[in-house]
Amino acid sequence: MDDNQDMNKSFLETVKFDEKGLVPAIVQDHETGKVLMMAWMNRESLQMTLEKKRACYWSRSRKELWLKGESSGNMQVVRDILIDCDGDTLLLKVSQTGGACHVGYHSCFYRKVTENLTMEICDTLMFNPDEVYGKKS
Amino acid sequence: MDDNQDMNKSFLETVKFDEKGLVPAIVQDHETGKVLMMAWMNRESLQMTLEKKRACYWSRSRKELWLKGESSGNMQVVRDILIDCDGDTLLLKVSQTGGACHVGYHSCFYRKVTENLTMEICDTLMFNPDEVYGKKS
Repeated sequence: MDDNQDMNKSFLETVKFDEKGLVPAIVQDHETGKVLMMAWMNRESLQMTLEKKRACYWSRSRKELWLKGESSGNMQVVRDILIDCDGDTLLLKVSQTGGACHVGYHSCFYRKVTENLTMEICDTLMFNPDEVYGKKS
Repeated sequence: MDDNQDMNKSFLETVKFDEKGLVPAIVQDHETGKVLMMAWMNRESLQMTLEKKRACYWSRSRKELWLKGESSGNMQVVRDILIDCDGDTLLLKVSQTGGACHVGYHSCFYRKVTENLTMEICDTLMFNPDEVYGKKS
């Protein structure tokens, strides 16, 4: 048995962070099962998530802790955290306020691939990002 | 607008592979919404997935193309592919034969974090991995 499948280890010992100290977290609506986004956590953001029961990530672009909803108000209350067989991916089941996506959609996965390999919108626009984050010049 | 949100680009132009040439693919049951696993794709495995409509990944441990179900029989017929706002994560909606997880569970996310930060099993065992993959000595 792989060490990451050992049920006697604690959750935090089981999480396997990558060479950058990060682990991907898939985020799913806890009631509908809709996948809302994927983000990355470092140890500190995971511990903050466990403490606050609100999703906190590591922003790879801004290189800082990112408490989801801090600027948009679109927070995620964490209902459950699951871990995969290899210990290197997390699944968060959350209650999402408003839209999860910074473009304004409910889910970041708002585009579906078509038969001819173009994309079509398959999700609902929840807010105007210019109003929520301020218009970029 | 970020280039990865441009709806006029083709799907394959929109996918943003990381510095290792990989993109994470979340895999979800297309009927129940259950998240089954996450795996990684390179361009070749993505193109094979699009052609065969069967999930094909890049095995980071074995460093080879991995047609899911090739050895276990637990294949994934791909019903839909979605792409996220940044173009750097995919979501596959699939029909899963048997269990997705090499440990034998239906989902790789078969462990849930408890209040005291241990883990408990929260999924159904579908097969005995020793019988499917052969017993490891």
